[in-house]
Amino acid sequence: MTTAWKSLGKRELLRVGERLRVFAEHIRLPDGREIEDYLQFSTPPFATIVAQTCEGLFVCERHYKHGPKRTILSLPAGGIEGEDAQVGAKRELLEETGYASEDWQALASWIMHGNAGGGTTHSFLARNCRKIAEPESGDLEEIEVELLSASDIMAALASGEMPLVSDVAALLPALMALGLLVPNWRSIQCCAPK
Amino acid sequence: MTTAWKSLGKRELLRVGERLRVFAEHIRLPDGREIEDYLQFSTPPFATIVAQTCEGLFVCERHYKHGPKRTILSLPAGGIEGEDAQVGAKRELLEETGYASEDWQALASWIMHGNAGGGTTHSFLARNCRKIAEPESGDLEEIEVELLSASDIMAALASGEMPLVSDVAALLPALMALGLLVPNWRSIQCCAPK
Repeated sequence: MTTAWKSLGKRELLRVGERLRVFAEHIRLPDGREIEDYLQFSTPPFATIVAQTCEGLFVCERHYKHGPKRTILSLPAGGIEGEDAQVGAKRELLEETGYASEDWQALASWIMHGNAGGGTTHSFLARNCRKIAEPESGDLEEIEVELLSASDIMAALASGEMPLVSDVAALLPALMALGLLVPNWRSIQCCAPK
Repeated sequence: MTTAWKSLGKRELLRVGERLRVFAEHIRLPDGREIEDYLQFSTPPFATIVAQTCEGLFVCERHYKHGPKRTILSLPAGGIEGEDAQVGAKRELLEETGYASEDWQALASWIMHGNAGGGTTHSFLARNCRKIAEPESGDLEEIEVELLSASDIMAALASGEMPLVSDVAALLPALMALGLLVPNWRSIQCCAPK
């Protein structure tokens, strides 16, 4: 069993409103060594939604994003604003795409950065989504809503058209929960002896 | 087609050596609006490696990580230090686990944060890995190397024991490339009419 590090305090290096906080943490390692400025940062939690329509298609967004600095495909996603993660996910899906569902499943929560923390993305699956309103995100991006099949999504992941780490992290458990990706453990092969 | 944003300059808010840089960027949106302090940050690129042994098991690490602040399972991973990403991946796998491979495949590169950038993680698959040395990572963490089956890894993802977003992002394309996860598009169902 590996041993937890001990925090001896931390010093804030930067705070940008609610968007980013950066700390230098004073750490004592299990072997007694001390690190005085171990970097930690946090961004707000956000939800990523795999939203499947009644027809089996997935609600996606095509938009310019300033992180990758190009137009990409992504899943609906957005910041959780002091609310329950699933409440935030429902709100973001409706605002960004106009779609709603009564069948929600929390899939997983992922840590963005193993060393520095970086925040958490919560992955959700919404089944049987129906369009009930026009999108009204208020986001800075112009969002074009597109409905993609599962195979279209896999192609977009493979080509780099859907490049966000939080999207692929939501898709693995979602496509398995939907039975669209299935384990095939029998294909394990030993390599030839050398 | 959504239109790219125009950068009118940026101001550095924080630099922590090579580990983190934070900027406020002055942006002009396609509709003419200007945002004077759009947050951008970057951390160094890092490689995440799905390393399969000749016996079909996967080389994993159990260690305390200060991002999640608990002991977790992860894939081998590490920062790329001014080198080709695959060279960095090979080095990190050998240093952290003692395993090496002659059969490498670059799978994908993922953007960590859609809005703020945040850096890139490169996902690699290394097949037919063999242990050729003792681990000697020089990392702060005490790493216990464990060999897991694909089904053990899926269970660890589902339970939260393997919580890093970069790990699940590497595993989806790797397990598909290995034929251990296969598409089953026929399972798409329409929902009952309401």
